[in-house]
Amino acid sequence: MIVYNFSAGPAVLPKEVLQKAQAEFLNYAGSEMSVMELSHRSSLYDQIIKEAEHLLRELMAIPDNYHVLFLQGGASLQFSIIPLNLAQGKKALYINTGAWSKKAISAAEQVPGVEVEVIATSEDQNFTYVPEVTVDQIDQEAAYVHITTNETIGGVTYDKLPQTGEVPLVADMSSNILANDFKVTDFGLIYAGAQKNLGPSGVTLVIIRDDLLNKEPIFAPMLDFALQAKNRSLYNTPPTYAIYIMKLVLEWVKAQGGVQGMIEKDQAKAQLLYQAIDRSKLFSNPVAINNRSITNIPFVTGDEKLDQLFNKEALVAGFQNLKGHRSVGGMRASLYNAFPYEGVEALVDFMQAFEQKYGGEK
Amino acid sequence: MIVYNFSAGPAVLPKEVLQKAQAEFLNYAGSEMSVMELSHRSSLYDQIIKEAEHLLRELMAIPDNYHVLFLQGGASLQFSIIPLNLAQGKKALYINTGAWSKKAISAAEQVPGVEVEVIATSEDQNFTYVPEVTVDQIDQEAAYVHITTNETIGGVTYDKLPQTGEVPLVADMSSNILANDFKVTDFGLIYAGAQKNLGPSGVTLVIIRDDLLNKEPIFAPMLDFALQAKNRSLYNTPPTYAIYIMKLVLEWVKAQGGVQGMIEKDQAKAQLLYQAIDRSKLFSNPVAINNRSITNIPFVTGDEKLDQLFNKEALVAGFQNLKGHRSVGGMRASLYNAFPYEGVEALVDFMQAFEQKYGGEK
Repeated sequence: MIVYNFSAGPAVLPKEVLQKAQAEFLNYAGSEMSVMELSHRSSLYDQIIKEAEHLLRELMAIPDNYHVLFLQGGASLQFSIIPLNLAQGKKALYINTGAWSKKAISAAEQVPGVEVEVIATSEDQNFTYVPEVTVDQIDQEAAYVHITTNETIGGVTYDKLPQTGEVPLVADMSSNILANDFKVTDFGLIYAGAQKNLGPSGVTLVIIRDDLLNKEPIFAPMLDFALQAKNRSLYNTPPTYAIYIMKLVLEWVKAQGGVQGMIEKDQAKAQLLYQAIDRSKLFSNPVAINNRSITNIPFVTGDEKLDQLFNKEALVAGFQNLKGHRSVGGMRASLYNAFPYEGVEALVDFMQAFEQKYGGEK
Repeated sequence: MIVYNFSAGPAVLPKEVLQKAQAEFLNYAGSEMSVMELSHRSSLYDQIIKEAEHLLRELMAIPDNYHVLFLQGGASLQFSIIPLNLAQGKKALYINTGAWSKKAISAAEQVPGVEVEVIATSEDQNFTYVPEVTVDQIDQEAAYVHITTNETIGGVTYDKLPQTGEVPLVADMSSNILANDFKVTDFGLIYAGAQKNLGPSGVTLVIIRDDLLNKEPIFAPMLDFALQAKNRSLYNTPPTYAIYIMKLVLEWVKAQGGVQGMIEKDQAKAQLLYQAIDRSKLFSNPVAINNRSITNIPFVTGDEKLDQLFNKEALVAGFQNLKGHRSVGGMRASLYNAFPYEGVEALVDFMQAFEQKYGGEK
């Protein structure tokens, strides 16, 4: 059976990447060692981590005044350590667009010495749009404005970035990094858990502008951006294998025509599914057209029991992890870069057949 | 060429483990997905992480009143968050046996609200032994006594644990977990980076006694032991693939006769190398006999240039990562559980040939 994996993360990886990793699993570059067995201080491993950084800089056009860090702990740890590093004794401004924004806000509020202010929220309409923010709303003394560029649970994304004046924009880009055309130079800091578009779980990417590195040491060396930057992510043993897989994924993205090539493919996939949803009398997606995510597409029938039936039959048909997040129910198709177009075609066919069988009027 | 990998970590993994992982790399348990692609909330992955915990509990005889956590950030992050979780407003006592103890001490000293006291050190003899500690040296109000059960750089290990009265013993067991016969119940907390005896880098094990979990929340959820225990290491996405490899390693350890079987093999390997060193007129190891590590065995010729020559020729002969740590020079053979006996035999032969060629009197 052909299986399509709609997981929100850890998610589907490019088949070519997995095949390459499998082929050299026991013997990397003639070393007779697995990449997992390489010392992180060896010259062979040094090439891997440097090439990963190099490819990322090329694909995202990251200028030299930004550091690229390969850290651990996921976006969830960044929720705490970004305010710890950047906002001591300052205000940190947040835009609330859904579940992940809320997690970032809640974590920041627990960091001592940081004053958190939510300057805009779309909670009034159940996070189905991105609120407008104008520069006069931004306290120019604030440490940063934080956004979540894509909400994986709500399926909401920014169509344009907020204007923040001189205040740096900090973005959780976990779910749509390498799948958007934002410029790195419009951000002060970008972070992303790898397990959606970058690679396997266990490595967290941080791209930080040089002038935003903390001047004072953080109480824990591992949480200190300046120290990590100085040590080029080798203060201690990094998650070596996860970084290696990320390197292979970045090579694959480059071969797909880079970020622009990926976006075109992602848009085609998303368009196909949104069209099917919008033409359907059974399925619907509540998000404002301009803010619809091309990455995570939630949809419902409007009837919880029918959603359950859909999920049950979808699983039998080989559609894995299509069930919506446990906090919202329904269905969700995560169409990350590695997700194949044919999988969306198959899903659309399945949805139409399901609607014919069970669908009434909306 | 046969390659023997003496890396101190990331280190050699059991060949059988790598072969199994390679075979099911693209299709785990008939799922048509790689383990890397599994959602951490899927039933398939749930089996993996539960089985990893189950095997570890069985192998180490971990009682039910201890939690097993799979975290991130390595031992280096634990150096900071153990005092943060366990010693707020209290004294934390440390025994200094070398480079890793010193790192743990230095990190603890930076944690606000914790008073660090070094109660014993072997610095007077360049960390070549483990200092004696008696219970009357232990302030019974202290949060814990911290030890490093094995120093990877100095090659020093505890032959018996210090008596601490009612004060819990906290141990960095990164380099000799599953290679010693200490009882878990003699510790309050054990932690270990995986990349020596447990698996690949990127996952950090914490075994913590229930009564030592923090009662007050820590400012960062990811650093909060009680929260991680409550969520069974699934507060956010864990390093799923690294945990899976750890599970395979634990299955392998069990098949080798468990921890006792491993120790016997480790002792045989270490004995062979120490005998060769002690019989040699060229090579020497400075560590007190009782405190010699069976895991990391440093040795020198006493002549830096000869050490360099040895390392150069050893590399050509297929002995990888035999060079001593950059802070001490010389040579170091790390003989973790997965390192084969034949590799030590080959090294001993090589050392004897080198001594015949270049060795004079010590």
